Amino acid sequence: MNYIFNLLIKFNSKHSALLFLSLLLLCSACQNTPTVNSLKVNTQEELNEAIANAIPGDEIILANGVWKDIQIQFSGTGTKESPIILKAETKGQVFIEGISNLKFGGEHLVVDGLYFKNGYTPTNAVIEFRVDSKNIASNCRVTNCVIEGFNQPKRDRGDLWVQFWGRHNQLDNCYLAGKTNRGPTVRIDLKGNESVYNYHKIINNHFGPRAPKGGPSAETIQLGDSGTSMSPSYTLVANNLFEACNGEVEVISSKSNFNEFKSNVFYKCEGSLVTRHGSYCKIDGNYFIGDANNENIGGIRLINTGHWVTNNYFYNLKGKSFRSPLAVMNGIPKSPLNRYLQVTDIVVAYNTYINCTSPWQFGVGVNIDQKDVLPASEIRSARPVRSTVANNLIYNEKGANNIIIEHDKADGVLFKNNIINNQGVDFVNDKNLLVSDFQLTKVSDDIFVPSEISVDTEPFIGFEFETISKDLFGNSRTNSKVVGAVSKTDNVVNPNILDKSKYGPDWFSNVIEAKEPETHIVAKVSDIQITINEARSGDIIALLAGIYKVNTPLVINKTITIQSQGDGKAHINFLGESNTPLFELNPGGKLIVKGLALKGNNTNNAFASLKENMSDHFGLSVLECDISDFNYVLKAYKESFAERITFKNTSISNCANGLELSEETNDKGDYNTEYLTVDNCNFTNVKANVIDYYRGGYDESTIGGNLLVTNSTFTDCGAKESNKILLNHRGIINVNLVGNTFKNNAVNLVSLLWGAKNNIHSNNTLLNSGEIKTEQNLKLKLMY
Amino acid sequence: MNYIFNLLIKFNSKHSALLFLSLLLLCSACQNTPTVNSLKVNTQEELNEAIANAIPGDEIILANGVWKDIQIQFSGTGTKESPIILKAETKGQVFIEGISNLKFGGEHLVVDGLYFKNGYTPTNAVIEFRVDSKNIASNCRVTNCVIEGFNQPKRDRGDLWVQFWGRHNQLDNCYLAGKTNRGPTVRIDLKGNESVYNYHKIINNHFGPRAPKGGPSAETIQLGDSGTSMSPSYTLVANNLFEACNGEVEVISSKSNFNEFKSNVFYKCEGSLVTRHGSYCKIDGNYFIGDANNENIGGIRLINTGHWVTNNYFYNLKGKSFRSPLAVMNGIPKSPLNRYLQVTDIVVAYNTYINCTSPWQFGVGVNIDQKDVLPASEIRSARPVRSTVANNLIYNEKGANNIIIEHDKADGVLFKNNIINNQGVDFVNDKNLLVSDFQLTKVSDDIFVPSEISVDTEPFIGFEFETISKDLFGNSRTNSKVVGAVSKTDNVVNPNILDKSKYGPDWFSNVIEAKEPETHIVAKVSDIQITINEARSGDIIALLAGIYKVNTPLVINKTITIQSQGDGKAHINFLGESNTPLFELNPGGKLIVKGLALKGNNTNNAFASLKENMSDHFGLSVLECDISDFNYVLKAYKESFAERITFKNTSISNCANGLELSEETNDKGDYNTEYLTVDNCNFTNVKANVIDYYRGGYDESTIGGNLLVTNSTFTDCGAKESNKILLNHRGIINVNLVGNTFKNNAVNLVSLLWGAKNNIHSNNTLLNSGEIKTEQNLKLKLMY
Repeated sequence: MNYIFNLLIKFNSKHSALLFLSLLLLCSACQNTPTVNSLKVNTQEELNEAIANAIPGDEIILANGVWKDIQIQFSGTGTKESPIILKAETKGQVFIEGISNLKFGGEHLVVDGLYFKNGYTPTNAVIEFRVDSKNIASNCRVTNCVIEGFNQPKRDRGDLWVQFWGRHNQLDNCYLAGKTNRGPTVRIDLKGNESVYNYHKIINNHFGPRAPKGGPSAETIQLGDSGTSMSPSYTLVANNLFEACNGEVEVISSKSNFNEFKSNVFYKCEGSLVTRHGSYCKIDGNYFIGDANNENIGGIRLINTGHWVTNNYFYNLKGKSFRSPLAVMNGIPKSPLNRYLQVTDIVVAYNTYINCTSPWQFGVGVNIDQKDVLPASEIRSARPVRSTVANNLIYNEKGANNIIIEHDKADGVLFKNNIINNQGVDFVNDKNLLVSDFQLTKVSDDIFVPSEISVDTEPFIGFEFETISKDLFGNSRTNSKVVGAVSKTDNVVNPNILDKSKYGPDWFSNVIEAKEPETHIVAKVSDIQITINEARSGDIIALLAGIYKVNTPLVINKTITIQSQGDGKAHINFLGESNTPLFELNPGGKLIVKGLALKGNNTNNAFASLKENMSDHFGLSVLECDISDFNYVLKAYKESFAERITFKNTSISNCANGLELSEETNDKGDYNTEYLTVDNCNFTNVKANVIDYYRGGYDESTIGGNLLVTNSTFTDCGAKESNKILLNHRGIINVNLVGNTFKNNAVNLVSLLWGAKNNIHSNNTLLNSGEIKTEQNLKLKLMY
Repeated sequence: MNYIFNLLIKFNSKHSALLFLSLLLLCSACQNTPTVNSLKVNTQEELNEAIANAIPGDEIILANGVWKDIQIQFSGTGTKESPIILKAETKGQVFIEGISNLKFGGEHLVVDGLYFKNGYTPTNAVIEFRVDSKNIASNCRVTNCVIEGFNQPKRDRGDLWVQFWGRHNQLDNCYLAGKTNRGPTVRIDLKGNESVYNYHKIINNHFGPRAPKGGPSAETIQLGDSGTSMSPSYTLVANNLFEACNGEVEVISSKSNFNEFKSNVFYKCEGSLVTRHGSYCKIDGNYFIGDANNENIGGIRLINTGHWVTNNYFYNLKGKSFRSPLAVMNGIPKSPLNRYLQVTDIVVAYNTYINCTSPWQFGVGVNIDQKDVLPASEIRSARPVRSTVANNLIYNEKGANNIIIEHDKADGVLFKNNIINNQGVDFVNDKNLLVSDFQLTKVSDDIFVPSEISVDTEPFIGFEFETISKDLFGNSRTNSKVVGAVSKTDNVVNPNILDKSKYGPDWFSNVIEAKEPETHIVAKVSDIQITINEARSGDIIALLAGIYKVNTPLVINKTITIQSQGDGKAHINFLGESNTPLFELNPGGKLIVKGLALKGNNTNNAFASLKENMSDHFGLSVLECDISDFNYVLKAYKESFAERITFKNTSISNCANGLELSEETNDKGDYNTEYLTVDNCNFTNVKANVIDYYRGGYDESTIGGNLLVTNSTFTDCGAKESNKILLNHRGIINVNLVGNTFKNNAVNLVSLLWGAKNNIHSNNTLLNSGEIKTEQNLKLKLMY
């Protein structure tokens, strides 16, 4: 009947108002069992027509298969009871590929079951909740979809995967992973009255791994921006799994007001949930799980006013300062809109910190000592005030000496009834932590709850603390004196937070079955590329001993190991053109070379990224190799990025240039690799760019770039280095030089370390090689 | 029964829970007719005891009479149904005087009928809605009270008359007038979570005249401050009469979010309702009434985001720029917290502007041309964006050429369906104003509504415009196509907005019956002071012709005219000590001298304020006088202030110093008189400080200081002026020199005008007197 009804409306609406009303009355009688008008479409034209004609209750079915280079403009007006639905014929079998996107315009529209991959958006967003500024979506929904690796060819070409506008829109049960280019994965926009008080929901999603971008603007979710940070948002982010969302220091960057973050799981994410701009957020009942080792995994970082952090569970987090389990920042007095407002009126109550060593850090970001190199409007000297930290629980399986780190004094914070088991180890306790020897009960691998706590105090009842009525698991706090996230000490049910079937689409899993790598033995040069092409990602190419003369670059676009087979060594002599690489690292190409001798013709290169269109990251490990006679050993071009580049037990000699990762010169905080590691290598007669690794721009929220050089020797290097620095790592935040020997290098400095950051050195021997110098405050270009 | 019940609770509560419950049940049966336990108190001790013992439903009666030097700490816990009331025995007959104040601590407390006068608070506020930071009031109320002239002795000693903290507190039906010292009359404070989401109400009050303070910090109501401008306030300011609230440029300074200003009357207030910080305010159905002449009377000035200005009525306003009927400011990009955020997402709809000439001014405060003298963080270059001005009505009885003034381009504003009757006069119309020849119907002296409007357009329906469902008078807009504040064109009922009985206490009126001044004829010197003391304010002292030798200063503490009686001239020779004045202007002393000859001994002064404790303003008019042989003609001491100082038709000769108003050197925007007028006067041989009038500090919101010098001659003056400027008016915003003659004055400059401000000159003759120079951008100390 509904079908007839729809047809009648379509064709007769102008002429038969009476009939319309009659049918409406008829229909209202049957509204409990609404039927649906389904229409399958096979082409863009059919889709456009179906959308143009759709009425409430219609279902448009996208036929299974690949939809390539399709821009879907989903405009229409559904109703709450009868939305218009655009869905996959079979969930997960409709692939949106190529240069494609999806825009919503209208009300009560649902998109269900699409899979975005192998492509990128021609516009600012893959999915956008508006057509244009006059056609903005409300009450629209994306559900059960996947967006995977849908990256712009260029890292600097920013985009978003899901851009919210309007009000009451929803992203649920989706899986999003693998964004490499600039821009948050999901962003809420609040420009315009149509998009404030938005009450959007981001729920039940699985945010899969996002590798470090190597610079800012790689949040998983950003809510607003500083320019709209005065606006009320009321977005709810709940019940999502964030897994290895490592894009940058902010997994979630809340930049608007009244947002709520509830019951999310942050699993080994190298970043934090940050209230960057805007105030009055609720952060309740979330899990922050670390690995007891990685200092990049963060918790919650607070800026601004009136946030409530309650019932959260922090486990095995070792982050410090910006990445602390709880980082409370200093603000800038009368801060510019886009910088750091003072923390005021926050409440941190009933949270549990297990094995987080020094979970609370205050005055984070204080930089009064840099007032000579920074303008006054950059100096974070305003300490938190009018704030309360109460009824929290801390357990350290290994006692620590400092539980609360005060980068600046926490004298504006009231500490009440916080209980700690520090295993009897003495610690600085001027904030009245109550010591108890309570024990833990294991609920799951990552979840522990306290057994009975033997402290004879009542929970502190601050202003409106009665609103913290439930605990992490939703149990009532009434009559419970138990502090921390969990109000009960017995009969605690495992919340199964890592059961991935609870998040994302029901038809998709990112769990990859482990498989043994296959070894492909190669004996002649012409087989190398063929074998690489045929191998599966993760496989091994084993070269029999001998000399391989390679004329054109070997293309690496998957994870592959190339090594010598047996005891003999394979020698690869590269005869390719000047400035071409022996190994051309393509997007997604992660190369391990092991036990090879690589030799160039003095004009070509050993390893290089593509010169452009590095839409995915590369990776490189060089182990036990001999490398000689190249122009560049490694050349990373602009907008290329590798999470890790490692040289180990390798000798490099007679090259014009060494490891070159210094093309990100726009000083916007970008760099070419997260970790550059050189261990037990010998550099001999490398004339310039021995190591050249650059990050530019003053940006306190890029905390990256890691250079580790250990147990290596550098001899007769740097003779042609114009800047007279052997290891040139300007702007890299973390540098550590240990146990190296520098001999007869014709430079002024082996290294210029940045004292204010994490740049250190120890046990190095310098012979006729200049010196290692530390400059406390490096002058860099201001980014903001 | 209630009395017995109270006693039982007081004396037996610990012992008779059962009895208590029984009585409670009994009482619940009679709750519709609650009786009240009244207790009259006569002393502070009795009051304190009564407060300490008060229970819900109690009424504490303050005995009639003067309560001097009393600090009332009204703590207690009433209930919504049964508040604790502190009231006057007879409303208006209980006077709080001396060093006194009132603090609330607790809930559901009411203060009713008190009269604060003749005193000042020893603390920061006369009435404060908290005892201290741990004892904050909620649901408390001040009603039916008067605070009048309750000023600190020193203008720079800041205080508040009513300071709100907590939530749900109320100031209603009160009269507040005559504040002269630093500080807003009423302020809402939002520091601390207890004081946000406050939903305070300021309703049905009469804010009587507040004279200009001569510098900033003299708002009538301030809601929050920049430091808490991110906080939700939700204060309601409704149905108040603001009468000549001239303290400074901001009558109301909204510095928090979500405040509502509804149905208030701003009657000839020299200032504006300003959304200074914070966003999302509603300004609906207010009246802004000017006098068709005074350019200081303002309207609404907008800064920040998301404000809605609807159904307001603007009449006879001639303010410009900051004081425009509608001033939409430019912001500072990435503004510091305490400066100017960009205007975005505002809606100005359904307002009426009658005889406001150029009612809409955009880009107000643009100062790009001052970028050489100001830091970048002071440059207001960000124009309004994403804003709508629609369905407004403009009527100019005299057509104007510029209706919309664009100080900077209004290119981010959408103009829709605004209708104007400009009497057929051509005007710049690039914003599509719709011209109509509609006529007006008079509803009252200040209220006019349009007759039928002959424009064939529909009202513009912007986003959420359906929420503007009622008009200025509360009539439904449904089915009305009439734009402007009033949706009907016939049968409009006079709203009687100036019926003062609708505002403030029922027992009080500030209407003063006009009375004829009485003339007191005085013949001998010893009678002068006696007669002044006995005269009523406004009277005339008429001196018979002759010479009066005065030995000690004449004290002026009321409005008094001293003049010669008849045709002969009275000569006053002042023989007083050096640096004492002939006329000592005390607080509230407003002196007119007319037709007198005043002569000093070269060491004493003609006119001076008190050196300190000028708790009220003074005033001075000198007409047709001869003044000679004084040290200072006029000496205004620091923290003294006169609204007007006028010299007319007067000769001043042989004085060491002239008019000296330059002690406000702390550069916080203060100055000593609002209007200094010199007309048709002769200055001869005045050696220094001929006119010395100073305002310091860069503060765009102090728009004051007015120096008008016309048709006067200055001869042989300035010889001992160290700065070599004859008329020294550094920092004064409005200066006009017209038709004067300067002859043989030994100075470099007659005047150094401030080109960027309102400093002008015309038709002056300079003979051997240096020059008049204009400096475009004066360098002043930054105040913020």
